[in-house]
This record gives sequence, C-alpha cells and structure tokens, in this order.
Amino acid sequence: MKAKARAHANIALIKYWGKSDENLSLPMNSSLSLTLDAFYTETEVEFTNSINEDVFFLNGVEDKNTLSKISKFLDLFRIARNMNERAIIKTINYVPTAAGLASSASGFAALAAATNKASGLDVNSRELSTFARRGSGSATRSIYGGIVEWQKGINDKTSFAVEIDDASWDIGMVVVIVNREEKKMSSREGMKSTILTSPFYKNWPEDSQKDLKEIKIAIKEKDFEKMGYITERNALKMHATMLGANPPIMYFEPKSILVMQIVHELRDKGIPCFFTMDAGPNVKILCRLSQGEMIKNRLMEDFKEYEIIVTGPGPGVEII
Amino acid sequence: MKAKARAHANIALIKYWGKSDENLSLPMNSSLSLTLDAFYTETEVEFTNSINEDVFFLNGVEDKNTLSKISKFLDLFRIARNMNERAIIKTINYVPTAAGLASSASGFAALAAATNKASGLDVNSRELSTFARRGSGSATRSIYGGIVEWQKGINDKTSFAVEIDDASWDIGMVVVIVNREEKKMSSREGMKSTILTSPFYKNWPEDSQKDLKEIKIAIKEKDFEKMGYITERNALKMHATMLGANPPIMYFEPKSILVMQIVHELRDKGIPCFFTMDAGPNVKILCRLSQGEMIKNRLMEDFKEYEIIVTGPGPGVEII
Repeated sequence: MKAKARAHANIALIKYWGKSDENLSLPMNSSLSLTLDAFYTETEVEFTNSINEDVFFLNGVEDKNTLSKISKFLDLFRIARNMNERAIIKTINYVPTAAGLASSASGFAALAAATNKASGLDVNSRELSTFARRGSGSATRSIYGGIVEWQKGINDKTSFAVEIDDASWDIGMVVVIVNREEKKMSSREGMKSTILTSPFYKNWPEDSQKDLKEIKIAIKEKDFEKMGYITERNALKMHATMLGANPPIMYFEPKSILVMQIVHELRDKGIPCFFTMDAGPNVKILCRLSQGEMIKNRLMEDFKEYEIIVTGPGPGVEII
Repeated sequence: MKAKARAHANIALIKYWGKSDENLSLPMNSSLSLTLDAFYTETEVEFTNSINEDVFFLNGVEDKNTLSKISKFLDLFRIARNMNERAIIKTINYVPTAAGLASSASGFAALAAATNKASGLDVNSRELSTFARRGSGSATRSIYGGIVEWQKGINDKTSFAVEIDDASWDIGMVVVIVNREEKKMSSREGMKSTILTSPFYKNWPEDSQKDLKEIKIAIKEKDFEKMGYITERNALKMHATMLGANPPIMYFEPKSILVMQIVHELRDKGIPCFFTMDAGPNVKILCRLSQGEMIKNRLMEDFKEYEIIVTGPGPGVEII
C-alpha cells in the first residue's frame, strides 16, 4: 500500500496549446517533448485506514492549498480499484525554480506512478499516461523518457503518450532562468482566452500537426538542424496565437528576447542551437549536449547573476 | 515649373500589412494613421529643359542610388502631363533618425505634392494621395493631417486617403528610438514573406478591418482609451502574423519589450497610453499630448542615452 516514484520534467518541442475537453484534459493538438534529466519530482504515496483525509506534504511542508486537486486525482485510482483508503502523499520537487519549468508535468507523472503502484492498480505505461493527463496535460509526456509524443486522441483512453526516440544522439537543453516570479497568467487561463478570442488560433491545431509530422521525420533522420528549426518556429507560432488574444497575452520579457538574440548569434557562428519558450519568460535552448557548456559560457556573459542549467535527456517514470 | 512642398510622417494605428498588387501598391487592408508634427520632409522639384537626366539631392548630397525610383515616380506625372522635361529634386528630411520612422511616407508625399504643382498637373488631395501611394504605400496617408484612413479600394483610382479627424482633442505620440540601425528586413520583403508563408496571415485582412471599424467609432466618440486599446492590439496582431512566417520575422528587441512594459506600468497607474510598433524595433506611444512630457520623463529613467521625441498631430501636405 506504499510506493515511491520519480518522474522528470519535459519541455515541448511541438507545443500543446488548447484543450478540446477541459475536464479530461484532451488537447486540441498532439505535441512532442524532450524529457529532461536535471528536473524531476519524487513522490511517495501510502494508502492507509488510519486517517480520514488525504494529507499532502510538498518539500516537507504540509500543503493544504493543493490538497483538493491531489485528492480528486487520487480518486481516479480509488474508483478504478474500488477502494476507500485515504493517502499520505510526500512530494519533493527537484526543479531549481518553480516558474514555468513544468513542475506540474513531473509532479503529476510521479504522483500517477506512485499511486498506480501503491493502489495495486498496476496499469502499463501507456494507460498510466492517460491518468497523468488528468492531473496536468503535459504530465502525459513525462511518463516516458527521451523524445515523447502525446497523441491527442479522441477520448480518455486514446489520448496518451508514446516514446518516439531515446534522444541518445547528443541532444540536450540549456535553460536560462530569466525570471523566477510566478507567471502572471497560467497556461490554463492563457489557452482558454486564446481559443476564445484570438483570430489566429483557428489555424493552430492543423498547423502544429504539420510541424509534428515534419519534426518526427527530422528525428527519424537524426537531422538535428531541421528538428531545431521546427522547434523554434513552432514556439513562435504558439506565442503568435497568444499575441492575437483579447487582451493580448505576451510572455516575452526583455531578457527572453536577449536569449533569443544570443541563440541566433551562436547559430550565425555555426553552432546549431534553437530556442523554445512556454507560457512564461524563461527560454530553453535545444542544442547538442556536447556544446551545452560552451553555450552556457556565452550566456553567462550577459546573464551573470542568473541560473543557467545544462541538461541531457531524462528517463521515464521509475518506481524507486 | 518649380515648386516646394512639406509633408509629415505618419504612424499607423491600424496597420497596413500586405499588398494585393505589388506594382500599384494596392493594400490587402485599409489602414488608419496619425500624422505627426515632429517628423517631416521638404522637397523642391524643378522641371527644366537644361538637363538630360533627373538629378536628386538628399540632405544636400547627390543620391544616385534612389534616383531610378524617383525618376520612375516622376514619370507618372510626366505621362499624365504629356511632358518630357527632366527635374532637379532637392529633399531635406527632418526626421531625427532614418530607421523605421516612416521617412518614405513623408518623403513620397512631399515629392508627390511638389511634382504635382511643378508639373502643373494640379490634382486635388484625394487624387494626389493615389500618386503618393505609387511611391510608398504609407505615403498615401501623409497627404492629410490628423487622423487619416487609407481606403484600400479595388484599383489605382479607388485606393486613396481620406481625413477622418483633426486629432485636436489632446492626442500625441512619444517615440522612443531604441535602435538607429537600418532594419534587417524591409517592410516590403516582410509583407511578401508573411503573405506567402504565415498560417496566420489569411485572417489578417478581415480581422484588421474589424479593428478599423471599431477604432473609427472610438474616434467619433472621442473615446481615447478604446482608440488606444485597439491600436495596441492591432500592432501585436500584425507582429503575430510575422512570427508565423517561415523563417519567422521578429522585430522585437529587448528594449522594445521594455518600452511596452513601461507603457503597461504607466497604464496601471491610470495614465492612458498605448504602444504601437512597425517593421522595426522602435516603439511609438499613443498618449494624451498633455501627458507626453511626463511619459518621456518616466522613459528617461530607463533610456538615458536614447532619443525620445514627444509630438502632436501634424498637418497635411503643404506647398511652401
């Protein structure tokens, strides 16, 4: 009745932007991501009859704010197993900073894996990814390591993740933390507003699926430049749909643009690196893992007091 | 056979982005602008039989690079007047810096007006705006002062400017020169690439016409906040279409974003001001003219060594 799991964060190369079903977290488009080694969450779940309410500890401190969301998530497993026990959940986030670094992806993937084991439900990884999805859309992809596709599907059972590639061909990411503040608008709210008000959103689902198709070919051919180029362009298109929202949603900060300029400068010098950016100001650079430290050194010239992390691909969820 | 004219630059509040006819400079959408007092061009045109080639002086220096474009433009008048004389053209640009400040708008409007007079063609302002359009799309709007609409029309004769409002109700602009360098990609090239490659461009012509309709109502009602809000949103939507281009076109620089953040900060403090941005990094702030200096003072905290210009609405083209 007790299990502990570790799951890693992931950064989308083809972005997930927009839900077709709010309740089930079904996405408007399939997406693709790289699981990252440096950022992960460890969660222990223990079902017991000795308590009447779930208890949730985050980084050693009881967290009552998130509890109802966690309890609702655990209910999915309790219903599947026809069990009633409450749980003690202990989570440690090994994500350097909270803002915009997909801690909800690693968080719900680890919680799903630990609960799956502790409850004795023991579904396979594919089905586990549908559970993770219910907690947070991007958590779907954190069930697997390397490069992962989240196939949008048409219902709860068919919207799951699949492993595409183990990313063991010199692929990494450099993450620049340009701002640690909580983001002004959550992805959830940003997506909703974009769908409802942006004249450009209607082209996003189809267009991002073209990007997905192309990037999968590039990955198959191990064409890193093409893969990076599609990544960068796809991120800018997602942000374009947001700029069209009413009121406009803009996550660009001066420092975000500076990172982009440095990426282009490095590329002009022949170093293949490409930026991507999510619903927050921090910029992630897709690069050759072997060139990560060199890219970090260049960034440090302009980002002396900032946190810069170089990381390779991470593994899928593990019971530990 | 000799005349001199002065024309002022204008900044679009509803952007012109995309041509439907490259040769005639017919636009995909109607646009709306504010003519600015601080930036203008003076041009003298003298037709004479004593020379065999047009001669063009820009700011006192003979300019052979632009000559063929100018000569072709003068041919429109020569053909209309059935005349053969060559011309001496002397232009002085009173635009603080060249990059992205619409000097081609004031330039071709002044040239059109001076040539119109010197050639004896003497068409009225509306028709004159169709001549200016052939030189540079945005020059169409610089024929008039205050707030001007360029109606896209369906052919050479119907694509002209009309005056909408004299903007005498405490309206001004603050222009921050964040970068004086020549822009990397001209508007002309940017428009072409956006039309051909951006999945979002197809929504632009219709969407911008909705914005135009709304801003005209706001102007009629002298609803400055609404006018500014539509201005800011329309600019971001134009840039969104560019971010979707392949390769992406991004004119944002770190300093451009900083100006936008300061505009939002001022607005949060109750000062109605709104940014707009064209195919270059410089940001223009639409504000109450009476608050222009105060806004400039706030900007100077972050832009000490930068040029910041406060200006009111400018007049239409004049023979001087």
